[in-house]
Amino acid sequence: MAQQEVQNGGAEKVASAGAVTFTAVKPQLLVEAPKANDAVQFYKAAFGAEEVGRSLHPKRKAEQETPLVLSAELQLGGFTIFVSDLPVDSATAGKTAGGAVVLCLETDEVEAAIAKAVAAGAVAEGEVVEGEGACCVGRVGKVKDPYGFLWSICSSGKKCASAEAEAVA
Amino acid sequence: MAQQEVQNGGAEKVASAGAVTFTAVKPQLLVEAPKANDAVQFYKAAFGAEEVGRSLHPKRKAEQETPLVLSAELQLGGFTIFVSDLPVDSATAGKTAGGAVVLCLETDEVEAAIAKAVAAGAVAEGEVVEGEGACCVGRVGKVKDPYGFLWSICSSGKKCASAEAEAVA
Repeated sequence: MAQQEVQNGGAEKVASAGAVTFTAVKPQLLVEAPKANDAVQFYKAAFGAEEVGRSLHPKRKAEQETPLVLSAELQLGGFTIFVSDLPVDSATAGKTAGGAVVLCLETDEVEAAIAKAVAAGAVAEGEVVEGEGACCVGRVGKVKDPYGFLWSICSSGKKCASAEAEAVA
Repeated sequence: MAQQEVQNGGAEKVASAGAVTFTAVKPQLLVEAPKANDAVQFYKAAFGAEEVGRSLHPKRKAEQETPLVLSAELQLGGFTIFVSDLPVDSATAGKTAGGAVVLCLETDEVEAAIAKAVAAGAVAEGEVVEGEGACCVGRVGKVKDPYGFLWSICSSGKKCASAEAEAVA
């Protein structure tokens, strides 16, 4: 029923809205303020992320010694992630709004990557397993970082089975 | 203090773990089972996502008419996202484990993208604003999808101010 509505409504509006082109998908991690800067340092140490830009919260610059991070832009594996302070007054909205998202990091060095993340302060969740996991078939382990985010560290270049996708498409 | 520990611990272990190379960061959206398939249909209608692969939960294939989705691989703006059913027995773990993540979608057609997503069943959160937002400077609006995930639809090609990043690096 809900799916039917989506399909009908979607098809009707696609014509009026035209084709929309997206150029990127970039995860933004909302960190309890004012820990975004700590989180950025952690992602540098744990994953070798590189900070390429940062904007500060304009309303907080003059009021606090530690200005809140509106958005820190990190490069990681050729991809972009943003890290932002979630101000306390919007913390409830942010926590309840988001569904659960796991960030899959692809690498050929799964064990070494997990060891490095754990050394930097992440907590391993379970063992490294073969054959099932978030990022489809392959070797995968999970870590939870000190800011509450879950990362799947998985072997790169593995794809979902496309045959099954065709069967259900 | 915590940051100090991370830096010391990180630097020490980097040498032993060596440099780890990541090749990709891919968000995985955990959807309350068995709604992952509905969510995939929604992302096709709302964002024009293309499903390129799907794997089903091996333990559920024979037990249920609607097998759970272990991972559906979607292409969106040249990026990959995964959509997975979160089985009920792990729902609590998944919900509490993840920090809040917003998915930033870059496009030159912010208003049209939001209209199309809303037509497909998303709910707009606030107005489109200029000059501040999740994905740094630019035009940005937010929608919440029927599965609880927050998307920032923002104008593409905008960067964080790098001067500020240098000042705090």
